[in-house]
Amino acid sequence: MLSSTPAPKGKVLTYESINPRIREVQYAVRGELAIKAEELKLRLDKGDRTLAFDRIVNCNIGNPQQLQQKPITFFRQVAALTEYPDLLSEEQLPITQQLFPADAVARAREILASAGGAIGAYSHSQGIRSIREHVADFIAARDGSPASADDIYLTAGASAGVQQLMQLIISGPEVGVMIPIPQYPLYTATLALYQAHPVPYYLDEAHAWGMNVQDLEASLHTARGRGVDVRALVIINPGNPTGQCLSESNMREVVEFCHRERLVLLADEVYQTNFYEPDTRPFHSFKKILRSCPAPVRDEVELVSFHSISKGMVGECGRRGGYFECTNIDPEVMKQVYKMASVNLCPNVQGQILVDLMVKPPQPSDPSYPQYRTEVDGIFASLRRRSRRLHQAFNEMEGCSCNPAEGAMYLFPSIQLPPKALAAAEEAGKNPDDFYCLRMLDATGVCVIPGSGFGQKEGTYHFRSTFLPPEALFDTFIADLKKFHQEFMDKYRS
Amino acid sequence: MLSSTPAPKGKVLTYESINPRIREVQYAVRGELAIKAEELKLRLDKGDRTLAFDRIVNCNIGNPQQLQQKPITFFRQVAALTEYPDLLSEEQLPITQQLFPADAVARAREILASAGGAIGAYSHSQGIRSIREHVADFIAARDGSPASADDIYLTAGASAGVQQLMQLIISGPEVGVMIPIPQYPLYTATLALYQAHPVPYYLDEAHAWGMNVQDLEASLHTARGRGVDVRALVIINPGNPTGQCLSESNMREVVEFCHRERLVLLADEVYQTNFYEPDTRPFHSFKKILRSCPAPVRDEVELVSFHSISKGMVGECGRRGGYFECTNIDPEVMKQVYKMASVNLCPNVQGQILVDLMVKPPQPSDPSYPQYRTEVDGIFASLRRRSRRLHQAFNEMEGCSCNPAEGAMYLFPSIQLPPKALAAAEEAGKNPDDFYCLRMLDATGVCVIPGSGFGQKEGTYHFRSTFLPPEALFDTFIADLKKFHQEFMDKYRS
Repeated sequence: MLSSTPAPKGKVLTYESINPRIREVQYAVRGELAIKAEELKLRLDKGDRTLAFDRIVNCNIGNPQQLQQKPITFFRQVAALTEYPDLLSEEQLPITQQLFPADAVARAREILASAGGAIGAYSHSQGIRSIREHVADFIAARDGSPASADDIYLTAGASAGVQQLMQLIISGPEVGVMIPIPQYPLYTATLALYQAHPVPYYLDEAHAWGMNVQDLEASLHTARGRGVDVRALVIINPGNPTGQCLSESNMREVVEFCHRERLVLLADEVYQTNFYEPDTRPFHSFKKILRSCPAPVRDEVELVSFHSISKGMVGECGRRGGYFECTNIDPEVMKQVYKMASVNLCPNVQGQILVDLMVKPPQPSDPSYPQYRTEVDGIFASLRRRSRRLHQAFNEMEGCSCNPAEGAMYLFPSIQLPPKALAAAEEAGKNPDDFYCLRMLDATGVCVIPGSGFGQKEGTYHFRSTFLPPEALFDTFIADLKKFHQEFMDKYRS
Repeated sequence: MLSSTPAPKGKVLTYESINPRIREVQYAVRGELAIKAEELKLRLDKGDRTLAFDRIVNCNIGNPQQLQQKPITFFRQVAALTEYPDLLSEEQLPITQQLFPADAVARAREILASAGGAIGAYSHSQGIRSIREHVADFIAARDGSPASADDIYLTAGASAGVQQLMQLIISGPEVGVMIPIPQYPLYTATLALYQAHPVPYYLDEAHAWGMNVQDLEASLHTARGRGVDVRALVIINPGNPTGQCLSESNMREVVEFCHRERLVLLADEVYQTNFYEPDTRPFHSFKKILRSCPAPVRDEVELVSFHSISKGMVGECGRRGGYFECTNIDPEVMKQVYKMASVNLCPNVQGQILVDLMVKPPQPSDPSYPQYRTEVDGIFASLRRRSRRLHQAFNEMEGCSCNPAEGAMYLFPSIQLPPKALAAAEEAGKNPDDFYCLRMLDATGVCVIPGSGFGQKEGTYHFRSTFLPPEALFDTFIADLKKFHQEFMDKYRS
């Protein structure tokens, strides 16, 4: 049949025709395991009772409020008041005061004033000025050295900030960035997307996942020898997925290495309040260490530090808030950072407000302080207890060994899989650790992420699990894991 | 002096060493004019009384709440309740009910339940399922044809969505994307960043900024003749900065053009409720037009449509919320879209909640409906009045002519600058329209954006101004503009 309409044609956008760098991106934290867990959850929600469990336990991602962690009350009170300023009107205030403490009311007024009365407007692209000033005060108090609001950019979470900086640094396919292995896969994903070389350095499992400057040097020189223009070093401290907290002397060595080798230091410090051995392994910021180095190091090493409202005892993941601070970055480069922030208009104001609250929480003389203190201390103590219990459980499991979490929200146990399990994995067309984790999900409803998603030494197998399930469920959670593991090992033992 | 510390070296990151594509990005909406306006505002805030004005009027950006537009009360009531769910507890509810209407309470409960009780958790990377279902219902009702939650991605504003899709489409430097001239500079900025060819087509100022398919074809064939792999066509409807609202027949021609030429249609429809001539120029979505085309067009043209909470009568810019809907996109490509969304974890939940409220506002039987209706109708009527007043004012100014705003939030008048003004601009090292706009800012405190930031036919000069200043200030605003313009023309008239 003749027709003026042309014959059907294939799609313009196909798997083959799209940006090939997107095809190469991998992000295991919400990858195969997480997608399968979602499908199982949907089946449970629809009343399917044929599964071996009655709920999914998402240990694949550091998402505390998904697992019943309560938000900090004061933060949410202030957030609610800024959303609906009519509550602060003369007419409604007497009723509002029955529901909200005086310091929440005062703080909401302060934040509204700093946003020109309108949190519904685009803010300054760098973030609301007074909030950046509060961040600078927080950094200055933390480090004992000055910080400036001009050097701080508020962001929609730390991930958005990391991507902005990576995009700036990567000028072409010859550029490389040093990343830890194991690493949080945002880094490999971003390097794949912007087509740069990951230059891996290994964290030392036998020495509490520490960094070794000789290894850094060896990795750097190998890459440079191959013609890679290595420009930056990523450090996650406290570590993700590894949980280590770096010592001051180790950090100093690293800063000197960056100076010697002309590397921009990208310090992912989103877990800076999640450290569980404050006496032996306290957190130090790289900004503080850098500023305590002698000149010219202190004034020359280019440093960008990232922080977030998603972690710590705050756990406000859904809100997408964070900031980065630039130290020793060229002013002309800072102008380009500003320009790119302006294309994106502004980070969401609700996230900015939570940054403000995180860096300037209630003080001892404030009415909300006792409740704030109790909530923060309670979450912290519980995280530490859960970290220790899960750590102990992993070390009691056959063929499993695990460093303690000095910090962050994860454990990264190593598992020795029997040859029959390796063979079964191969037959199923899976990596051995993927195979193990899929079996765990099927047997228990617990979703963890295989070590291959983070990187691991060849021939070793790991997985990452958060220790975020609610404490009341921890006995069952641990019993389920142990039972699954024992049955798995029994099945595949030679 | 000998030292073990190496000699100081230059920065790793300099203007010359960073990503060259970032250097090339231009974004006038928050560029030179906006930065200068900010500096002037800071001077005013600090008490400087030497300026010719006492306040800055930001007409550079569609940011209604910055210019005193009030948020929709019901939306903010629900947002506040979701922030602080304790207000919904049995104990506090009797007090809460004195401050919040029953439907706001019910809706907050519904949203909290759909977020698993925890708006502080990362949501599904594509956005909360029930919110996507509400978006699908909204689209189906708007267009009279079905929509699916699976095809919808919630985003942190439309800009974030556009960037995601552009990144997907641009597979290499040979790729081109057709964009209108004048255009919203997000598009040229994004093409510069991802290193693709802008393939311009001109909107016809003499015919109400309409589209002409012959021009589209000519532009496309010229680009393809040069070896550019043109893959997509961007349409902003209602137009930004031009304000036109496309006719149904024009849209149908464009859809057929996309089918014939195998172009993905990217429809920026963020101003879909800002149309001011509903009888002669109603808004039609491209989804509706596409679905009303005969097969195979209706089932083959790949379409992505963008919407936002920042515009319309909602105006919630600071919150960063929006969505895009994919039509006829290959399922394998959709998987890649999901993967990239998952790397970014999730769009901020507060923005998602506002999308939910925008697409599912109070209904006539709800207690909040009368107030909601009054607020929306009031904002709409006022926007239309302001658009007409400013349009008339521009057309009364010497050498100035301006199409009416059929839609959106902007006027884009053409100005004929006298030769002496062109010479003065050249001497100042500025584009003539930049020169004019800078003078306007200095004389009046009104910040508008030069036409060069959006693109314009060579030898013509324009500027974009929102018509968002508060109605109470409109007399002064217009008088200031007219006085400045007359003095400028008097000064430079030959």
